Amino acid sequence: MSDVRINAEYISRISPRIALTLQWNIFIMSDFRTNIEGLKGYVPGEQPNHTNILKLNTNENPYPPSPHALKALREVTAENLRRYPHPFADEFRQAVSEVLELKRDWILVGNGSDDLLTMVLRATADRTRAVAYPVPTYVLYRTLAKIQDAPIIEVPFDDTFTLPVETLVRADAPLTIIANPNSPSGSSAPIAQLRELAERLSGILVIDEAYAEFSEHPAIELVEQFRRVIILRSLSKSHGLAGLRLGFGIAHPSLLSGLKKVKDSYNVDAVAAFVGSAAIRDTDYTRSVITRIQASRNQLTKNLEAIGFRVWPSQANFVLTRPPDGNARHLYEELKEAGILVRHFDDDQLSDKLRITVGTDVQNARLIEVLINLAKRSH
Amino acid sequence: MSDVRINAEYISRISPRIALTLQWNIFIMSDFRTNIEGLKGYVPGEQPNHTNILKLNTNENPYPPSPHALKALREVTAENLRRYPHPFADEFRQAVSEVLELKRDWILVGNGSDDLLTMVLRATADRTRAVAYPVPTYVLYRTLAKIQDAPIIEVPFDDTFTLPVETLVRADAPLTIIANPNSPSGSSAPIAQLRELAERLSGILVIDEAYAEFSEHPAIELVEQFRRVIILRSLSKSHGLAGLRLGFGIAHPSLLSGLKKVKDSYNVDAVAAFVGSAAIRDTDYTRSVITRIQASRNQLTKNLEAIGFRVWPSQANFVLTRPPDGNARHLYEELKEAGILVRHFDDDQLSDKLRITVGTDVQNARLIEVLINLAKRSH
Repeated sequence: MSDVRINAEYISRISPRIALTLQWNIFIMSDFRTNIEGLKGYVPGEQPNHTNILKLNTNENPYPPSPHALKALREVTAENLRRYPHPFADEFRQAVSEVLELKRDWILVGNGSDDLLTMVLRATADRTRAVAYPVPTYVLYRTLAKIQDAPIIEVPFDDTFTLPVETLVRADAPLTIIANPNSPSGSSAPIAQLRELAERLSGILVIDEAYAEFSEHPAIELVEQFRRVIILRSLSKSHGLAGLRLGFGIAHPSLLSGLKKVKDSYNVDAVAAFVGSAAIRDTDYTRSVITRIQASRNQLTKNLEAIGFRVWPSQANFVLTRPPDGNARHLYEELKEAGILVRHFDDDQLSDKLRITVGTDVQNARLIEVLINLAKRSH
Repeated sequence: MSDVRINAEYISRISPRIALTLQWNIFIMSDFRTNIEGLKGYVPGEQPNHTNILKLNTNENPYPPSPHALKALREVTAENLRRYPHPFADEFRQAVSEVLELKRDWILVGNGSDDLLTMVLRATADRTRAVAYPVPTYVLYRTLAKIQDAPIIEVPFDDTFTLPVETLVRADAPLTIIANPNSPSGSSAPIAQLRELAERLSGILVIDEAYAEFSEHPAIELVEQFRRVIILRSLSKSHGLAGLRLGFGIAHPSLLSGLKKVKDSYNVDAVAAFVGSAAIRDTDYTRSVITRIQASRNQLTKNLEAIGFRVWPSQANFVLTRPPDGNARHLYEELKEAGILVRHFDDDQLSDKLRITVGTDVQNARLIEVLINLAKRSH
C-alpha cells in the first residue's frame, strides 16, 4: 500500500486538481481530449507520387538545392547516422549565425519552421492565453491553437490584405502571429507596420518569414529592438530543401529559453543539419535562384492579368489569383485533369481564388497555355 | 468596427471562456504559460564533439547502420530534397508493414519515437486527464505530461523493477505508459503482465519498445488484441540510426487517427524515410548486430559482477549497475576524466547506480580495465 500513498502525495504535490483526477473513471472515457475529438487535422497540400504532374500547389522551389548541399549529402558518414545529433544542431546554428551575422544563442533550429510554430504555441497558448492573427493565412496557426485549446482571435484582412494593425493591437493577445509575406495572399506588410505592432503589443509577436527571402521587407532587425519578437525562417522554399525539414527561429535568448523547454530533445537530424549548413552558406546560389523566381513571378503575374485574371501583388514565390468567372473550384479540377496541381482553399474569402506556385518560366508558360485552352473550350 | 464584431462572435463560438480571455491584459503578462515557466526542460545525455571519448551514455548502437542504409543515403536525389516528403512517410510505412507483417494503416511514423510520445501526450493528456507510469523510467514522460499540465501518477518500481500492475490498474489513468524494456533499469515485463494491464485498464496503454529488439518479450501481438494499446518502436538503437530520427507507432487505426490530428504535417524528412526503409528491410544485418550486442551485454554483466558491482538483469543494450561503494556520482566523474562517458541520474532510486551502454567487446574491456584501475587507486 505504501506505493499508493507516495503516489497520492505526489499527485497532491504537483496538482491541486486531485478530486477531479480521481473521479475520471466514473465517466465513460474518451480516447482523446475533448478539443482533439472535435479537431479536423491540418490537411497538407497533395503530394502525388508521379513525377509527370506539374506541381504548383505547395510552394516548393522549382530549382534544385545548391550543389554544395548535394556534395555535403554525399559526405554524410555512417558515424553521423549512428550517433545522436547535436540537441541544438550547433553546426547549422553556426552557419546561420555567420550568414545572417547573428549571435548563436539568438538562433533556435527546428524540424522545419512548423516545428518552431509548434514550440511557440505549446509554450505560450492555453485556455487562458489567446492566439491572434489576421485571416486568411496559414491554416496551421488555427490547428495549433485548437490543439492548445486556446481562445482564437481571427482578424479578417480587407480585400487588399493590408495588415489590420489597430484591431490586433486592441486584441493584444499573449501571442500574435503574422505571416509575412502572408500565404495565400502573397502580400507583405512594410516593416514600419510590423514595428508599430511590436511597439504596441504587450505579448509575443511571431513574424513567420517562411517566404521572406522572396520579399523586399525582411524584418530581422526587429528582433534586436524588441525582446518579444521572434522571426521564423524556413529552408523549404528559398533553399529548395522542403524534403529535408529545416527551419529556425531568431529571437532574444530569454524568449528562446521558454521554447527550448518544449523542444523535442533531438528535433533536427544530423543529415539535415549538415546538408542545411552547406546550403545556407552558399548565398550566391540562393540569391541567383531567388532573383530568377522573382522575375518569373512578375512575368506570370502579367501573363495571368493578360488573360483576365486578377492577381494580388505578391512578395512570395506564389501568386493569389482570381479567374475571370470566379469559379476557382471548377478551374482547380480542370487544371488537375490537365496534369497541373494548384491550391484551392475552402474558405469564404478564398473560394473564388487559386494559389499558384511560381515555377520555372517553361512551367509557367505551360500553365498559361492550358488556362488559355480551357477558356477557349468553355466558350 | 465590423471586423471586431466578427471576431468576438468567433471567440464566443469557439470558446465559452470569453470573459477570461478579454481580461488578460489587466494582469502583467508572462511570456509563457504558468506550467512552462515552472518547467525544467528535459536534459539529454551529453553529446561531446570529440571522437576520442568512449561514449557509453546514450545507448547508441556501437555498430554502424546496415550497408544498405548507407547505399540508400548515396542514392538520395536533389529532387528528394527539393520536394516536400510524403506526410505519412509511406515508403517507410510500406517497409515496416512488410517486415513486421502489419497493415500499413496500423503504422504511424515519427521523427524518432519521442515524436510519437509527443503526439500521444498532446492528443490525450490535459488538466483533466492524468498520465500514469512506473518510476524510475524515461524522464521525458514526466516532461511531456508537465507540458500538457496533466496530473501525473508516478508509481515506484520495487528494487527488482517488477511491473506494478495492481497499482497502475487502481490508478486507471486515461493514459498509462510502460517502457519495456524499461530505462534505466533494463528490466522487461513478461507479456502476460502487459496483457493483464491492457485487459484491466480502461484508458490508453503505451508500450514504449525503444529497446524491444534487444529483449525476448516484444509485445507487438497486443495491439491486435486491444484497441487502446499502442506500441512505439525506434530505429535509433536497434538499427544504429540515432542521427536520423526515425521511429514508429503500431496501433488500431482508430487510435492512430487521433494522433494524426496533432502530428506535424511533414514530421519525417525524405532522407530518413528513404534510408530507414533500406535499414529496416535488412533484417539479417540487424539480427546479427543484435545477437552480438546481447552476447556482449551478458559478458559485460559477468565482468562487472566479478569486480563487485551489482548488475540488474538487462533485456536492453545497456545495464544498470551499482558500484561496490554505491558512490556512483563520484565514479561517473572519474570515468569521465578517464575518457569514458556513462549516465548518472540525480534521482533517489538511482543516485547510487550508473547506466552503462553496451559497447563492442573491445570497448567493454576498456571500461572494465579502467574500473579495475580506479578501484586499485582508491585502495
